[in-house]
Formats: sequence, C-alpha cells, structure tokens
Amino acid sequence: MAPISSKVKINVDLGEGYGNFRAGPDDELIPLIDYANVACGGHAGDPMIMQQTVKACKAHNITIGAHPGLPDVQGFGRRYIRYDPEELTAIVRYQIGALKAFLDAEGLEMHHVKPHGTLYGMCYQDAEVCRAVYSAVPKGTPVFGLAGTIHEQVAAELALPFFAEAYGDVKYNKDGTLVIDRKKKPWTSDETKKHITSQLEYTSVTAVTGEEVEMPFKSHPVTLCCHSDSPNAVQIVTAARQIVDDFNKKHGYN
Amino acid sequence: MAPISSKVKINVDLGEGYGNFRAGPDDELIPLIDYANVACGGHAGDPMIMQQTVKACKAHNITIGAHPGLPDVQGFGRRYIRYDPEELTAIVRYQIGALKAFLDAEGLEMHHVKPHGTLYGMCYQDAEVCRAVYSAVPKGTPVFGLAGTIHEQVAAELALPFFAEAYGDVKYNKDGTLVIDRKKKPWTSDETKKHITSQLEYTSVTAVTGEEVEMPFKSHPVTLCCHSDSPNAVQIVTAARQIVDDFNKKHGYN
Amino acid sequence: MAPISSKVKINVDLGEGYGNFRAGPDDELIPLIDYANVACGGHAGDPMIMQQTVKACKAHNITIGAHPGLPDVQGFGRRYIRYDPEELTAIVRYQIGALKAFLDAEGLEMHHVKPHGTLYGMCYQDAEVCRAVYSAVPKGTPVFGLAGTIHEQVAAELALPFFAEAYGDVKYNKDGTLVIDRKKKPWTSDETKKHITSQLEYTSVTAVTGEEVEMPFKSHPVTLCCHSDSPNAVQIVTAARQIVDDFNKKHGYN
Amino acid sequence: MAPISSKVKINVDLGEGYGNFRAGPDDELIPLIDYANVACGGHAGDPMIMQQTVKACKAHNITIGAHPGLPDVQGFGRRYIRYDPEELTAIVRYQIGALKAFLDAEGLEMHHVKPHGTLYGMCYQDAEVCRAVYSAVPKGTPVFGLAGTIHEQVAAELALPFFAEAYGDVKYNKDGTLVIDRKKKPWTSDETKKHITSQLEYTSVTAVTGEEVEMPFKSHPVTLCCHSDSPNAVQIVTAARQIVDDFNKKHGYN
Repeated sequence: MAPISSKVKINVDLGEGYGNFRAGPDDELIPLIDYANVACGGHAGDPMIMQQTVKACKAHNITIGAHPGLPDVQGFGRRYIRYDPEELTAIVRYQIGALKAFLDAEGLEMHHVKPHGTLYGMCYQDAEVCRAVYSAVPKGTPVFGLAGTIHEQVAAELALPFFAEAYGDVKYNKDGTLVIDRKKKPWTSDETKKHITSQLEYTSVTAVTGEEVEMPFKSHPVTLCCHSDSPNAVQIVTAARQIVDDFNKKHGYN
Repeated sequence: MAPISSKVKINVDLGEGYGNFRAGPDDELIPLIDYANVACGGHAGDPMIMQQTVKACKAHNITIGAHPGLPDVQGFGRRYIRYDPEELTAIVRYQIGALKAFLDAEGLEMHHVKPHGTLYGMCYQDAEVCRAVYSAVPKGTPVFGLAGTIHEQVAAELALPFFAEAYGDVKYNKDGTLVIDRKKKPWTSDETKKHITSQLEYTSVTAVTGEEVEMPFKSHPVTLCCHSDSPNAVQIVTAARQIVDDFNKKHGYN
Repeated sequence: MAPISSKVKINVDLGEGYGNFRAGPDDELIPLIDYANVACGGHAGDPMIMQQTVKACKAHNITIGAHPGLPDVQGFGRRYIRYDPEELTAIVRYQIGALKAFLDAEGLEMHHVKPHGTLYGMCYQDAEVCRAVYSAVPKGTPVFGLAGTIHEQVAAELALPFFAEAYGDVKYNKDGTLVIDRKKKPWTSDETKKHITSQLEYTSVTAVTGEEVEMPFKSHPVTLCCHSDSPNAVQIVTAARQIVDDFNKKHGYN
Repeated sequence: MAPISSKVKINVDLGEGYGNFRAGPDDELIPLIDYANVACGGHAGDPMIMQQTVKACKAHNITIGAHPGLPDVQGFGRRYIRYDPEELTAIVRYQIGALKAFLDAEGLEMHHVKPHGTLYGMCYQDAEVCRAVYSAVPKGTPVFGLAGTIHEQVAAELALPFFAEAYGDVKYNKDGTLVIDRKKKPWTSDETKKHITSQLEYTSVTAVTGEEVEMPFKSHPVTLCCHSDSPNAVQIVTAARQIVDDFNKKHGYN
C-alpha cells in the first residue's frame, strides 16, 4: 500500500494534570510536537493548568486544539458514562468555550477539537453520540478523528473539516478502532518505530489480533497522535518526531 | 437624599442548580427581570443547566451576564477559599469562557460579568483579588458591583464599564458592604418594599446595625439585585418589579 | 395470589441533598416511615447532611441503613458508569464506612444496605457487579433488593440476610425489574393506592406494558420503598403509611 | 538541650493519589517507614487507592492511621477553606469512617489520626477548629500533632492520647509552627541530615528566620514525619530511616 500523500504532523495531549498532579512531562514534549490537544477540565486539566499550558504552547509556537473529555477526573475520561445527546453537546460546548477564553486572552485561535479517551471512542461507535459531540464544535473548526469511521462520516454531515489520525502509542483492533486502556503501558523503541513507520509508509498497521489493517486516510491531512501519559512519553515522542521528520523529508512534504 | 438619576433595571442570579437540584423558581422569575446573571459551573450550574437557562432567557429577551463563583458547589460559593491571584484570574476566565460558548451558540452577546457570593465580597475587600478577578473580564464588558468600594475603583483602573448595584433582599453593613449568609432567609413584603424604596428614592439604606447608609451611585447605571434562592423569591421579585416600574415611570425614565 | 405473609415496613431514601440543595421534604417524611436509607456522599449527601439526617432519624427512632450510590452527584447516581468490580467494592465500602462513623457517634447500629438508583439496577442485571457491591456489606447486615433477581441469589451466595422490596412509586417492567428515570414523575393518590395495594394483597403488580407480574417475595421480610424526591412525596408516603398500617392490622401482623 | 527520651518512629503520608494520578513513590517508601497516614478522599485518595494502600501496608506490617484533609483534591488540602465547626467535625468523621471500613475489611485497627496540610495548621492556630476536628476522632485513638501548641492542649482536653511530631522535610517558623507550601521543594541530603539530627539529639531546630527553636516534646512518644510528595522523597526517607535507626540504637531505645 502507498505512503501517506501529504505532510504528517504530530499531535499530543497536554495539560492533563489536575491541581498538584501532573500526567506527563509537558515541558519536555512541547518542543517536539506540532499540535497540542489541551485538556479542558473534563477528564483532566483545571483553569490554572490550562492557562499555563496555553502560554507554554504560545511560547513555542505550538498550534492549540481543544481536548474535551467525559467530566470524570477520577476516571481520567477513560471509563464509559452514559449521557443523553443534549447533555453531551452541553458538556463539550462548555469545555471548548472554557479553553477558548484562555486562547482569546493570548490572542490565539483554536485550531481543532479532538475528543478524549472514551468520548473519542463513543463517537466512532455511535453516530448519534458523534453528532451530539461534534455539534458543539464551532463552525469551520477541524475535528481530529479516525478515518473510515463514524468520525469521518459525521464530520462530513456537519461540514466540519476532518483530520485523519494515526496513533503512535495505541494499538488497533482489526476493525481499525483503538484499544483504549485506563492507564497507558510502556512501548519499546522498536515497537514504536515499527508501529509508526508501517502507518506512514504503507498506510497499514498490524492489529492486536495479528491482522494487517489498512488505514483509509484518503486525501485528509494526517496527524500522528502520541500520549503524554505513556510511561516513556518523551522517548516515544522523540522517536516519533525523528520518524515523521524523515518521512516528510523523504517524500518532499514541506 | 436624591432619588436615583436614571432608569433602574432588575438583575437576578439564574441557573444556580446542579444536576437534578434546583436552587430557585427560574421559570417564574425570568418574565419578571431585566438581566440574568447565569451561574457558570463554579458555585452552581452545570453545562446542561447553562444551555437551558440561556435558551430560556433568549426566549424572553432577557439580557444575559456571567455569574462566576468560587469553584465549590457544595458550599454554593458562599464560604471563603484562599486563591492566589493568578489562579483567581484563571477560574473566572474559565467560567466566563464556558458561558460564552452557550451564548455564541445562540447568537447572543455577554452583557456583563458579576462575581457571585463570597467572590463578590472578596473583590470589594481586597484590590489585588479584585484586579485578579476583573482581569478575566473581556475588554469592554461591564461589571456589576458595589459603588463606592474597591469594585468601582478597580473597574476604573481596568477601564471596564461599571454598573452600580442596589440589593433588594440582602442587608447592608454600616460601611455599605453586604451581609452574606450561606443560606438566604425569608423577607416580608413590607421589609422588601421599605428596603428597596429607600434605596431608589433616597439612595440610602438602613444598615443591620441601625445606621442610615448613603448609596454612592453617582452617575453609574443602577441595577437592583434580587436572589432566586431566597425562600420567597417569586414574591420578592414580583414586589421589586412593581416598585421599580413605578419608580421608573414616576421619574420619567424609559 | 396470596397477600404478603408478614408485617410490611416502609423504607424511604433520606439525606439526598448536597450542600445548600435539598432533594426531598425529609423532615416531613421521617415521622411516616420505618427505615431510612441514608445517602452516603456518592450520588448525594455530604458529611453535614449525613450527620443531621442520622440525628433526625435517631430523634424519631427510625432505623437506619446505608444507601451507597455511584459517585456522581451531578447525575444523582441515575446514569450508568462502568466500573471494574474491584473499584465497585471500594466505592461502596467507602460510603458504608463513612455512614457507619456517624452511626457510631450516635451509638446506633447500621440496619441494612440498599444500593441506590443505577447501582441497584446494575446489581440485579449482572451477578459479577452484584457480588462486587455486596462484598462491601459488613457480614450479617441485611441487603434490601428485588426478590427473584440476582439480588436475592447473590445475597444467598454471600450469606447476607435479604429483605424483599416492593415499590410504591416506581413502575415495573414485565420481567419484574424497575423503570428508572433520572427524575421522578408525579403520581396521583389513586395510582399510588392501586399500585401498592396490588403488591401487598395479591403479591402482583401491573407492568408498564400491561402484563400482571407476580412478586416472588417467598418468606423474606418485605419492605415497601417510596422516594423522597418524588414531586409529591409527602402525599405518596402518607398514603402508603395508611395502606401499610391497614394491611398489617387487617392481617394481624405486629 | 537533651535528646528525645524514647524510641522515635517514622510516619509518612501515603495513598495521596487520585484516580490515575500518583503523588509519591508509595511502593518504595512503605518498607522504610513505621506509620502510614493514609489519605481518605478529602485532599487526595479515592476508594480504590485507599483499598490498595491498606493492603500494601498490611503486607509490610506498617501501622496505619487516618489522614483526613480539607475536601479539596484540586488544592491538595493545602489552601485555606472556611468551615463552621459542626461541618469540620462532619467532614473529618466522614473520612475517618471511610478509612475504617477498609481497615475492618482487612482485620486491622486504626492506630492514629493525623489531619493533613492546611487542616493540620488550622488546628494548631485555632482551638475551636481543633476541638471540632479532634471531636471526630474515635475515643482512645491517638492524634499526631505539634507539641507545645493547641494540638497538645486540645488532645488533653478531650482525653485523646498525643504523639508529638518532628518534621524531616518541612521548615519551622520561629514560634515552632510549620511553613506549609502547596508544593514541596527538594532538600539536599545534608540539609535533611542536619534538620533531623538537630531535632532528635538536641530537641531543637533552626527556624527559617534563623532562630534556634526548642521542641517541647516532654514525655510524649515522638514520631518523625516525612512527605511522600517531596521531589526526592525516597532519598529523604532513606536518610531519615538511617538517622532514626542510628539514634534509637545509640540511645538503647527498642
């Protein structure tokens, strides 16, 4: 299968702490990435952390998107909670608006919206849920999601620009969906390299059950996601940066 | 002393429920008021209630402001919590932004910002706190506060428009500040009438300790605040509406 | 079908407020009931409300049980949240222990445990969940549940005494399970009377879909549950008290 | 000044995580300590973490006490919140009871109670607050506190056994009270050694303002506190263990 047909950028979730608690080594990751998905106080993040994260990204010219999650800090937005569609729209709109205030204060634009964890999964599994969540996204703002799933379909329905995601540190099921654990497990450098390179160069990945799964990226912009709360996040993102830079250079994507 | 020199409007805190809990008879109050201060999820309110409250106000052409509070639903924002100034700015900015998202979705403007409860009191007691809180208010948006206090002074410093408040259902200390209880107590119609009329017609009020206190409204627009969580809120606001309408008519304020 | 074969008692959920918010008219209900299920800070309740509720029940000689719920005040424990069994045991144990401290301080015993809302429903739908929840119940303490369901089966497995519940203000599905809404709807006196009398005198009830459903109470003690957050709770519980007293008297149950 | 007159033991706060977040390297610290102060869900901790922490302590034969804090995970119980005395008793009783349930499940006793952070400080600054907090401690259970302060005085009033604390990683004011920061700062080994040794061998410590402060331990059992959320906690506690063991051996305390 063919390589990805345009420049790949890296997105990482940032600001996923809470009060004194920190989820990842944000300061070390910021210089390595292109897009930050900033937690908005749902699954993580609080106003102080959001303010600091926005300022830190601004200082490094990192493009910022909103990373709304299920309102469940204790579960880190990684366990299922049943919401009515109307309330889903409201909880996502609330979080996006809150982040926008910090961007406004710094004179920055919101580049994209990417739902977090279980909310992300709920969106590709249920079109009604996805419509409820994406309805809270300001017109014209891109959503980051899984190509070939309800994510892509509902973005088209609602006329929202769509960025296709590849995952650097999450395994795939054979249907192309993600294996979401409440806590991230460590990856070796070799695993990371193989996992990412396969997606970039062959738009294909090996599922946890062994099958080769094709990535239906089509002509969407592609962005590779890595997580700041992986046990060895700096190592993973450093490796990903190198692989992505080499890939973009090799294919002449600027 | 002279009567208030321009048209008086009524502001009421709305949307101060949480999940299944309701704080006041919002549906009955909305038709009686001019300005709604909508809770933003700090001391009360949640995304669903905010969404419904904004829609209900829009349906009645009620002008909406943000009502940020200390992040303490269990204490209803009516007990003191110590925050650093930087974090105060962040918690207020967060809440204002969250409400703005619901206003944006309905094509409405944010008319004003009014801090809630203890946060309101902290602002007139400490200029550093007030600066921190008002720094989160978008440029050009009026703040509602107590004339003759740090509220008025800091609004001037930061070039924010200022609306002076009179209180229909809160008693005053002899220095012109408010007596804030965690739970509101009932008022008789006669108490309400006397309390409001004195402030409107004589810009003066009797303090809890018996002294007559002058209200230094100057030329600021004046707005009378009543609370939706008072035990007999509908009765108080109905009385206030009549008194204010009569006052505005008598003085030819349109 | 035959009437219930032993004395029926009334249980009501109490202390389901949060901070300034109150869910039901607890003070009016306490004199009308036999057992209080006291919220423990999960779906509702906070330490202050628990302390006051325990004291109020003690003053009226009302027997107290724990009413643990999913930790979700905003959702009032009436929406599904996925928990691992180990964490379910922990959240229930935590809440039961917290209530026990208030009982210990007043020299009272914990009479029973009754899970709240969605947690109650999850327990009769999934034996693994029920085992996890009931594992947190102190040895020898009765559980209140639905006869003929997993509740009864797991109580037997774990050698916990079992009280069978009839519901005065909740409708039944045709399989004998409950129709749980996030907010309670009002009942007329006639509906209440017919619904309760049928269960007491004929151990049978009409399902929402029209079928007659037999109540498999067997020889378990039976307790009739009414809710304090129903819109007309005092009226419902007053009616229930009369019906139950008449029933117990008619059948000579003391 | 004379050395401490009886065997010194080490206490450390444990289980101060929340959901996926961890505050300290608990697993590495447990083998090094004598007493664990287990967070109870107020300033930190959740039911799952409490359950795991109690089991881990049991496996290492570590004696467990309750570590209740102000209910403020986001502020880590290290910022002031105003509570009425009655509500203070309730929030502490709630947390102690919750921990007791996990101890009961493992057949363990609660050895002591030690309030956390700002609550600890509020107790030595205000006798009414201290009475409210200590009123929630079960009869006969020791409290850990600062000798020569209101802690000691109120423990005597309420006939609670009292353990005097020395601090291995917190600086002192010249009145013998503690300098509490929201986040801990790193200590060098030399600083730690000097700070601890001075307290043990000379019952004296150098205040942040330079004065020598006498520690009025009298005949109370003395326990040295170190924090699990210090940046180099394992290093500090390892050093403390060595110093304390050497001290106890040198003075023949078994």
